[in-house]
Amino acid sequence: MSTITVPAQVPSVADDCEQLRKAFSGWGTNEGLIISILAHRNAAQRKHIRETYAETHGEDLLKALDKELSQGFERIVLLWTLDPSERDAFLANEATKRWTSSNQVLVEIACTRSSQELLLARQAYHTRFKKSFEEDVAYHTTGDFRKLLLPLVSSYRYEGDEVNMTLAKSEAKILHQKISEKAYNDDDIIRILATRSKAQINATLNQYKNEFGNNINKDLKTDPKDEFLAVLRATVKCLTYPEKYFEKVLRLAINKLGTDEGALTRVVATRAEVDMKAIKGEYHKRNSVPLDRAIAKDTNGDYEDMLLALIGHEDA
Amino acid sequence: MSTITVPAQVPSVADDCEQLRKAFSGWGTNEGLIISILAHRNAAQRKHIRETYAETHGEDLLKALDKELSQGFERIVLLWTLDPSERDAFLANEATKRWTSSNQVLVEIACTRSSQELLLARQAYHTRFKKSFEEDVAYHTTGDFRKLLLPLVSSYRYEGDEVNMTLAKSEAKILHQKISEKAYNDDDIIRILATRSKAQINATLNQYKNEFGNNINKDLKTDPKDEFLAVLRATVKCLTYPEKYFEKVLRLAINKLGTDEGALTRVVATRAEVDMKAIKGEYHKRNSVPLDRAIAKDTNGDYEDMLLALIGHEDA
Repeated sequence: MSTITVPAQVPSVADDCEQLRKAFSGWGTNEGLIISILAHRNAAQRKHIRETYAETHGEDLLKALDKELSQGFERIVLLWTLDPSERDAFLANEATKRWTSSNQVLVEIACTRSSQELLLARQAYHTRFKKSFEEDVAYHTTGDFRKLLLPLVSSYRYEGDEVNMTLAKSEAKILHQKISEKAYNDDDIIRILATRSKAQINATLNQYKNEFGNNINKDLKTDPKDEFLAVLRATVKCLTYPEKYFEKVLRLAINKLGTDEGALTRVVATRAEVDMKAIKGEYHKRNSVPLDRAIAKDTNGDYEDMLLALIGHEDA
Repeated sequence: MSTITVPAQVPSVADDCEQLRKAFSGWGTNEGLIISILAHRNAAQRKHIRETYAETHGEDLLKALDKELSQGFERIVLLWTLDPSERDAFLANEATKRWTSSNQVLVEIACTRSSQELLLARQAYHTRFKKSFEEDVAYHTTGDFRKLLLPLVSSYRYEGDEVNMTLAKSEAKILHQKISEKAYNDDDIIRILATRSKAQINATLNQYKNEFGNNINKDLKTDPKDEFLAVLRATVKCLTYPEKYFEKVLRLAINKLGTDEGALTRVVATRAEVDMKAIKGEYHKRNSVPLDRAIAKDTNGDYEDMLLALIGHEDA
C-alpha cells in the first residue's frame, strides 16, 4: 500500500507545471513548493506533469530539477519523478557498474518487482541505454555472482497461486542437501530460486523449514562475511518477504554512522507507492521506533521533508 | 517474407466459419475445403476465425479440427491455426519434455524470434501451462545444456543497429581463445551468445572471421558427434543466418530415410508467414531443386497439399 497522499482536488496539470516553473524562477529555488506538488502526485500524474512540462517549456522537467537542486534532495526528487520502469532501469544501470556492493540492488529489482514490472524495466533499459539489462549484468559480473544474477534479472516468473506440493517437497530436499554440502553455487539452488514462481518458492521454503528445522536463510549464514551467501539470502528474502527485506535495508542505512543516503533514498523512492505501509509496520515492530521519527532524527532540510512526505508523515 | 496467398476478396469471417463447419459435417471430412480456407488466411484472420467459431458453435475450432483430422495433416493444421505465440509456447513445452533431440527447437524459438515475439511466447506459456517457459527449460535440462539454454530462452535482447566495434574485437578474441582451449562451455562464450544484440554478435563474428580466418562454426565442429557443440552451432546459425539454419533443418528432414515430418511441419508452420521466401531461395540454391518439388516428392495426400499451400506452391 502506498504512503503518499494525493489531494482530493488535484490541481490541473497545467497549474502544476506553472507552479513548478515558478519554483525554479527568481533568486533561489522554492523547494517547499516542489515537494508540495511532486510528493503528492501518483506515478500517472507525475508522468502527465513531465509530458506537459516538456511540451509547455521545451525542457525535460528532470533537467530543470537537475539544474535547480543538489545532493540528497536532488537525488530523491529525480528518482521519484522518474516513471517506475525508467527508475528501475536507471538504478539497475548504476548498479551494474559498481561491483559487489550493488549486487543487492540488482537482486532487489529482479526479485521484488512483478514479472510485468521487471519486463517494463528491461524495456526501459533498451530505450535509455541502447542495450539490454541482462547484457550489462552479465558483462559486469563474474563467477557465482553472474551465475545467480543473470537468470534472476532475466526471469519472467509465473505469477499464479498454484503450488505443486510434491515438487515443493523434492526441491526442499535438494536445497537442504546442497546447502549441507556447502555447495551454495549449485545449479539446482540457482535454478529453483531463479525460475520457480514466488508461490512455489514459498511452499518449498516452508517445506524446508518443516522438514529440516531451520529457516533456509539461517543455514545460508555459515560465514557472515561471504558476499555470495549475502546475495543468496537477499534473494530469498526479496522473493518471500520483501517488506522485511526493505525494513532491514532501512535499518542498516539509518543505524549506520553517517546514514547510507543512497539506500534510504532508493527504498523510499521505489517503495512509497508500493508497500511502504507494510515496511513502516515492520520497521516500527523491529526497532520500537516509528520510521518517520528515525528518518527525522537522521536527516535534515529539504531532503528530510521530501522523505517524510513520501512515507506519509502527517506534517509533511 | 510470407509465402501464403490470401485472396484479394476475403470471405467474411462468418462465411469462413460456416464453410469450416460444413467441412466437418456429414460423412467424412472435406480436407480440401479446410485447406482452401485456413492455408489462405493470415495470423490475424485465423485468430478472428477461431474466436468467431467458438462464439458461434460453442466449441474451440482446434478441438473440432482435432476430432476430424489425423496424423501429419492434423498436426500441420493445428500448429498453423494456433496464434504464433501460442504455437511457440506449445512447441517449447513439447521440446522441454524430450531430452537432447529437442534442444535445437528451444534454440530455434529463443534465437530466431524477435525479442517481442519471444516475450509473447513466454506470456502464452504462463497462460497455457501455468508455469514459466524458463522454469521448464531449467528443470528438464542439466549441465552445459542448461547453462546455455536457460539464458537463451530468458533473453530480451536489444534490437537496435548500434554496434560497438571495440567490444566486437575484444569479444571475438575471447571467443577465439576459449574455443582454442576447447572450453566450449566457458562462461564468456555463453554470456556473449545469450545476451548481446544480434547486430553486435554479427559484428563480433565477422571480426572473428577476419582476425582468425575461420567461420566460428567451423571451429565449433571439432567433434561432429558432440551434442553440445551442435547446439552451440545452431545458436550461432539461428542468431546470424536463420534462413540458412532453417534450410538445413528442411534439407535433413527431407533427405532422411522416411522423412522427419516433425521438423518439416514445424518449420513450415512457424516460418510460412515470416521468412519462408528466403528459406525457399536458400533451399533451391543449396539443393538444386525447388523446395516445393522436394516436398511433393517426399509427402502425399492432404498433408502434402497443406504444406505446398503454405509455402506458396502455385497449384495449391
